Order: sequence, then C-alpha cells, then structure tokens
Amino acid sequence: MQPIYSFQTAKQIIAGKESLKRLKDDIKLVNKNIKSALIISQPSISDLGFVGTIKEQLEDQGIYVNINLDILPEPTVENIEDVFQQTSNTQYDVLIGIGGGSVLDTTKILSVLMTNDKQVRELLGTDMVEKAGVPTVLIPTTSGTGAEVTPNAIVTIPEEELKIGIVSNHLLPALVVLDPLLTVGLPKPITAATGMDAFTHSLESFISNKANPLSDMFALESIRLIASSIVEAYENGSSVEAREKMLVGSMYGGMALTSAGTAAVHALAYPLGGKFKIPHGVANSMLLPHVMEFNLDACTERLALVAEPMGLAVSGLSAEEKARKVIEKISEWTATLEIPQDLQAYGVVEEDIPSLAVSAAQVTRLLNNNPKKVSTDEMEAIYRRLLG
Amino acid sequence: MQPIYSFQTAKQIIAGKESLKRLKDDIKLVNKNIKSALIISQPSISDLGFVGTIKEQLEDQGIYVNINLDILPEPTVENIEDVFQQTSNTQYDVLIGIGGGSVLDTTKILSVLMTNDKQVRELLGTDMVEKAGVPTVLIPTTSGTGAEVTPNAIVTIPEEELKIGIVSNHLLPALVVLDPLLTVGLPKPITAATGMDAFTHSLESFISNKANPLSDMFALESIRLIASSIVEAYENGSSVEAREKMLVGSMYGGMALTSAGTAAVHALAYPLGGKFKIPHGVANSMLLPHVMEFNLDACTERLALVAEPMGLAVSGLSAEEKARKVIEKISEWTATLEIPQDLQAYGVVEEDIPSLAVSAAQVTRLLNNNPKKVSTDEMEAIYRRLLG
Ligand SMILES: NC(=O)c1ccc[n+]([C@@H]2O[C@H](COP(=O)([O-])OP(=O)(O)OC[C@H]3O[C@@H](n4cnc5c(N)ncnc54)[C@H](O)[C@@H]3O)[C@@H](O)[C@H]2O)c1
Ligand SMILES: NC(=O)c1ccc[n+]([C@@H]2O[C@H](COP(=O)([O-])OP(=O)(O)OC[C@H]3O[C@@H](n4cnc5c(N)ncnc54)[C@H](O)[C@@H]3O)[C@@H](O)[C@H]2O)c1
Ligand SMILES: [Fe+2]
Ligand SMILES: [Fe+2]
Repeated sequence: MQPIYSFQTAKQIIAGKESLKRLKDDIKLVNKNIKSALIISQPSISDLGFVGTIKEQLEDQGIYVNINLDILPEPTVENIEDVFQQTSNTQYDVLIGIGGGSVLDTTKILSVLMTNDKQVRELLGTDMVEKAGVPTVLIPTTSGTGAEVTPNAIVTIPEEELKIGIVSNHLLPALVVLDPLLTVGLPKPITAATGMDAFTHSLESFISNKANPLSDMFALESIRLIASSIVEAYENGSSVEAREKMLVGSMYGGMALTSAGTAAVHALAYPLGGKFKIPHGVANSMLLPHVMEFNLDACTERLALVAEPMGLAVSGLSAEEKARKVIEKISEWTATLEIPQDLQAYGVVEEDIPSLAVSAAQVTRLLNNNPKKVSTDEMEAIYRRLLG
Repeated sequence: MQPIYSFQTAKQIIAGKESLKRLKDDIKLVNKNIKSALIISQPSISDLGFVGTIKEQLEDQGIYVNINLDILPEPTVENIEDVFQQTSNTQYDVLIGIGGGSVLDTTKILSVLMTNDKQVRELLGTDMVEKAGVPTVLIPTTSGTGAEVTPNAIVTIPEEELKIGIVSNHLLPALVVLDPLLTVGLPKPITAATGMDAFTHSLESFISNKANPLSDMFALESIRLIASSIVEAYENGSSVEAREKMLVGSMYGGMALTSAGTAAVHALAYPLGGKFKIPHGVANSMLLPHVMEFNLDACTERLALVAEPMGLAVSGLSAEEKARKVIEKISEWTATLEIPQDLQAYGVVEEDIPSLAVSAAQVTRLLNNNPKKVSTDEMEAIYRRLLG
C-alpha cells in the first residue's frame, strides 16, 4: 500500500443507454460556444452509423464538422503523425474520438500535438506534455482499455518493436460519453479480448505496489461488474444490461490503473503488440493466468480478496486456495471466451523469446508496480509457457 | 434508477498521511508558474498551525502569499461578500481553502466571484455561474461535507431564513489534498456531527431517485468506510487509521451526492441551519433516523442493501427487517456520538414548526430526489418528533 496516493479523471462523465443521443446538448459542457469539431474514428465504426449520428447532431447546432477515419488499430508513431498532418491545417474547438482504445489514444495525442509544437516521439514518457491540448470528448466503443478516463496514451514504436506510453494529465478529456448501445454490435473476439484487458487493468491495479484505498474501490467494483457480465456479453452480445456492466466496469478499470498502475502482464504484453501485432487484449489475456501464477506467492492475500467480488464460492478456504481459484477462473474464462492461447499462431518461435524478454524488461514504469521482481529469465519462462 | 447519469469531480486528488507536506510540489499540478496565492481559513484552524505550514511551503517557492481568516461557520451572503471585498483588490493565481465545509464552500464562491462580476445572490441555483473561476486547492479539515469534490456551495440567506446552494461545475477545484493528520485534533462534537453528515450524504444518495451505478459505488464504499470507523474516530480521535477512513469516506459521500443528490434529510435540515443556526451535521443527524423511518416503505429494498456494508449481522432477515436494523443502528450511533436530539435546546418551539416546514418545502432541488413525496404536514410531523 502506498502512504500517499493520487487520482485524476475526466472532467465530466455522462453514462447510460442512449446517452450518445444527448451529445447535441452535452457538448455544451465542454464549451458553450463550440463552432468547429473534428470527429476521429475508423471505417468499421463509421459503418455502424455512430459517426453520422454525431455529425448530424453537431451540424444541427450550427457546428462545422470534419471527420478523419484513418486511425489504424494500435497506431504507430507514423500513423498518428500522418493523421496530424491531415488535420492540423484547421483549428478545432473540440476533438471527438469515438472508437476503441486505438482511436481514443490517438485523439488524446492529436489534441496535444495541436497545441505543443512537438513530435510524438518527444512526448513519450511521463509528464513530457507542456501545454493543455484542444479539449476532447471520448466515446468508447469497446469495453476494454478504459482509455477514456486515463491520462495515458499508448503508441507503437515500430523500430523499437515496442509500445510506449505518453503519460500526462493534459491527456484527460473534457467529456466522456458511455453509451452501452455502441457496444452491442461488438464482434465476439473483440468483446472477449477487450473485456479481458479491462479485467487485467483491475486485477493488476489491485495487486500493484501502488494499490491504495482509491484504486482498490475502483478495482474491486470493476472486478465485480466484469466477472458478473463478461460471459453474458460474449454469449449474448445484444444484452444491454451485460454491455452496460462491461462498459462501466472497464471505465472503473481505467480509474483503478490511473491511481495504481498496471504491472508485469502489461509489460510482457507490449513487445507482443510491438513485434507481432498481437492485439493488446489478446496478449494480456494470454499472459494473465501465467503471470498471476508467477506472482501468487508475493500477493496471495490480495488475490484471495478478489475471489468474493468475482462471485466464487470460496468460504472456508485458505488464502492460497482462494487465490488459486481466482487464477483457475481466469483460465476458464479464456477458454470459454475462445481467446487464442498459443503464440505460434502469431508467428512467434522459440528464437524470438530472448529478445521479447529484453524488450519487456525495458518497461520499468510498469514492472516497478509488480508485487514480485521478474528477472529476464523468468520472463522468458513465462513466454515459453505460451509456445504450443 | 436513472437511465442516464453523470459524474464530475476535482481535477486532481492527492491523499494520505502527510500529504499536506508535499503541497510545495503538488501546487505545480495547478499551474507550473504560480506567483501569488490566497489562503482562506479560520482562526481555529490557523491556531493548529496548518495555515502556517502552507504559507511557509509556498513562500519557499517564491510565491507571494496572503491570508484571510474571516470565514464564519455556515457563512451568510454578507460574510462571503465581505471577504470578497477584503481580497478582491489583489489578483491571485490560486485560492487555497483549508477548513471544514464552511471554508471550502466560501473558497469556491470567492473563486467565481473574482472572475464573474456578479453578486452572490445572482449565482444562487443551478448553472448560474458563467465563467471559470480562479483555480482552487481545497483541503478539508473535517470529515463531513465532501465539499472538496462537489460542484455545490451552500450559502445561508438570513432574510429568507434558509440555506441555498450554488451548483456549477465551475466550483470544482483544481486540486484536493486529503491529509488525515489535519483531522486528528477535531473536537469530539464536530467529529460526530460532521461524520454523520457524511454518512447522510451516502445514504441519501443511495436511496435517491437519481441513484445510479456510479453513485451507488461511491455511496456503498462510503457507508462501508464510515460505518467501520465513525465510533473509533469519535472515541479515539488520534487514530490516524480511523481518521483516514472517515476522510476518504466523506469524500466518496461527496462524489455520491454529486451524481445522485441528497434528499429530504437535507431539505429539512436547511431551515434549521438558516433560522436556528443549528450546525449542518447536527441538523442532519437529528433528522436522519426519522426521515428514513418515514421513507422506509418507499425504499425498503435499498435500505436493506446497506445493512451488509454497515457491518450488521442480518443474514436470514427479510428486507424490511434489514432496513429496520439500519435505522436502529443510525439511532444507536447518534446516542453513542452524543448528538443533541432535541430541537428545544436550540430555541425551537412548537409555534416555529409550520414555518420550518414551509421553508423546507421550497428546497425542491433536493425533495425531488426523495424516494417518497413529503407533504408539508408530514414535514411538520417529522420536526415535531424532535421536540422534547
Ligand atoms: N490509454 C490507456 O490507458 C490504454 C489502456 C490499455 C490499452 N490501451 C491501448 O488501446 C489500444 C487497444 O484498444 P482496444 O482494445 O479498444 O482495441 P482497438 O481500438 O484497436 O479496436 C479493436 C478493433 O475493434 C474495432 N471496433 C471497435 N469498436 C467496435 C464496435 N463497437 N463494433 C465493431 N468493431 C469495433 C476497431 O475498429 C478495431 O478494428 C492499444 O493500442 C492499447 O495499447 C490504452
Ligand atoms: N458543498 C457541499 O457539497 C456541502 C455539502 C454538505 C454541507 N455543506 C455545507 O458545509 C458547511 C458545514 O461544514 P462542516 O460541517 O465541515 O463545518 P464547518 O466548516 O462549519 O466547521 C465546524 C467547526 O469546526 C471547526 N473546525 C474545522 N476543522 C477543524 C479542525 N481540524 N480542528 C478543529 N476545529 C475545526 C471550524 O472552525 C468550525 O468552527 C455548511 O454550511 C453546510 O451547509 C456543503
Ligand atoms: Fe490494457
Ligand atoms: Fe450535508
């Protein structure tokens, strides 16, 4: 537990079924006099009609609207700078990002690129952003990253084969809209992987060396919500109730990690994303049970404490037995949710393991949060468990 | 439950034992280039050395510091405008309020008076503040109002014998510092009354018509923290652990009420403050069990749900039995905490009751949140139960 702990979040959050329909009014919470807006998204999300809904509502208010749909999944430095080149010739009063973590993170970065006269690479790391950005509205369409409420944005750095975070309070949005209706059409594999990413945020925050009373509340409530809805959201995607629990749960995961940070699962996942383009949620889900198994002896009590919020019948069991039940349940989920379990499917071979471990060892910002030190050898051993 | 719900809070929160000592660094979170600061407080708090600690830290950073200690408990319009007259000749980069709800609310109001060219009376009500204020740092020294994280500020209006709220997102602070060490010296009666105020915020938010998944999480965690520490904080005031639970619990109460609102207890308490200067926490504590008794049939299930977070042994009981146990426990607390139970001690007589009820009926902003309509006759009956 940290003696001193901190918290920061989005300026304003509006949540609930059909909340997107109110954007024409709620946009005034950002600024009463918005004249121009840039919507940032992807074709797959635009095809669902969500971008159009926003455009229409804003144009009805006399707001000039531009749209950019060129965000790639897990965007690279080059992709972000390319979108910046395309959009920076116009001054906008607000940037509206609607999509998964890839779109939200890009929106956050564009917002500060527009005011800071810096390259993306100069902003990497903690507190490198000097000036506030253009105000943003972030609207998640996956229940995963919690990026709508975190001060972080994750960038893929191809030449280093790694993903690196930009961390700054200037990345926090002016407004978040959490509408579960945007997620009912989420394809099964994305529901599964992004949902497990959210769960990983909460569990890693709860066992983090920086865990504290604030992060614990968010983490446990997130775990409660996700555990009670992830299988339902996967099997019965049109359940608005399950989708809403997942969406609020993933936001709480973002709040938990803002205060306590993620740890070794995320550190080991980043090279899998950077080198082999394994989607972030898939990489986390694959690693989660194995890293927790490794961590178990260093955080038995904490892992045991999540059994009850996960809804597991554990009364009378010892702390270690409870902790093992938690890990078993996670493995059971990854099977039920049909999340790939073999790195070979993504082209990883034994020879790649040492350099993956070397890359992961660089992610000290997150490894420092892990309740147990992880040597490069131990990282290699964890990766090897995922090889066939 | 609300279909659409919202949340907003302080921009940045720093918490934990000795967090006040870090203000010299954390003040940079407000603005990296602060040159002048106004500290707003009261003599009783300054006597404890807290104002001096802040002044010293800021002056060490080369910041010009002024101090105003003229805030009265439960301040009137005139008191606030008087302090504004005294302080508005200098431009400050930040206002730092350190004290109970009275000081925090005054700091919030001064901040927007300094930028809006309006009288206090013109700001009363919801969303009447047009421009952002001078950024504020709010440092609570009571575990009560949660005012450090709410967009509300409460003003006593002597001529109307009422207390009225100013509600605006512009009242939210740039930084909150939650240091339990500031509350260890809180006198017993203030610990009791302010602690019960915090509990009232959470319980009223939980049964509010505007209750929602966000407010419920804050409310239940607040109830859990306060129930597990209020008697200990009262009986053993130097317990930092109990004080920290109360301080975090009261902040969560503020977060809960920001999203769901308080209800009839607060509506009926305001005239007791406005006409008879009964301290806010005392008025709430007196009313709480009686209003809950009145509400019981309209929110049995919800009241029952707080039994477990309150730590009550209720397994096997019906919802109504659980709800009754909750109300019994509240009455037990008010006895243990030696909170006055008789309005006559404050000069209230039978003849005052009708006009008290008329005043309370005006507080529609809060009465609308109550799970059961309260007629003026019913309000009179509730007040009468507190007459000897
Ligand atoms: N900022 C943070 O705090 C944070 C935290 C964790 C992860 N991340 C980052 O977020 C990114 C991953 O985000 P993600 O997991 O949300 O995936 P994503 O944004 O890459 O989306 C995955 C795929 O789903 C599609 N999609 C999204 N919403 C959809 C919908 N409603 N219907 C149909 N298709 C939809 C997208 O177009 C994309 O192809 C990674 O770069 C990761 O590193 C950021
Ligand atoms: N803004 C909101 O959301 C909100 C919510 C509830 C109540 N309120 C308002 O807040 C006010 C009440 O605030 P409160 O209950 O904190 O009381 P308060 O601020 O009036 O303080 C009560 C007394 O305790 C003293 N005191 C405070 N801290 C102390 C310490 N650490 N040691 C010794 N003495 C200390 C004060 O000087 C004062 O005399 C009322 O006006 C009420 O209406 C506001
Ligand atoms: Fe993640
Ligand atoms: Fe109150």
